[in-house]
Amino acid sequence: MKAYVYVSMKKSVLDPQGKTVQRALTKMGYKGVADVRQGKYFELSLDGSLDRDAARAEVERMAREVLTNPVIEEFHYTFED
Amino acid sequence: MKAYVYVSMKKSVLDPQGKTVQRALTKMGYKGVADVRQGKYFELSLDGSLDRDAARAEVERMAREVLTNPVIEEFHYTFED
Repeated sequence: MKAYVYVSMKKSVLDPQGKTVQRALTKMGYKGVADVRQGKYFELSLDGSLDRDAARAEVERMAREVLTNPVIEEFHYTFED
Repeated sequence: MKAYVYVSMKKSVLDPQGKTVQRALTKMGYKGVADVRQGKYFELSLDGSLDRDAARAEVERMAREVLTNPVIEEFHYTFED
């Protein structure tokens, strides 16, 4: 089973890295992009030692306590069998 | 309309950053994680000047030509209305 944790800047936080990417794309002639925000994601391969509910709780705990900086970032996660 | 481009290391490429995260999680006592791979993603807000097919083609071109290093990375993307 795999879990995917997506971490992005909160909407209220400026994302200069994304802004730079957006400007570069526009400058290079790519069309149609109004805004870019950049985030990171973690693909967690789970070893199967936890059942589904426990794994979900553990992944949420890791995401909240370690993978995300709660001051400026937010996260969501998905599971895949 | 939004497009999400996900960029990750090819499976054949070592991901020391992900490995470090995995070791740290295990050391901190989190259970059940066999492996971690880290990637990045781009949330592109599209300005609506292109129709759906053109936007899809443009996003694929940006992802392939700019957002991804084809030597070591691969990408996939999704759309959301």
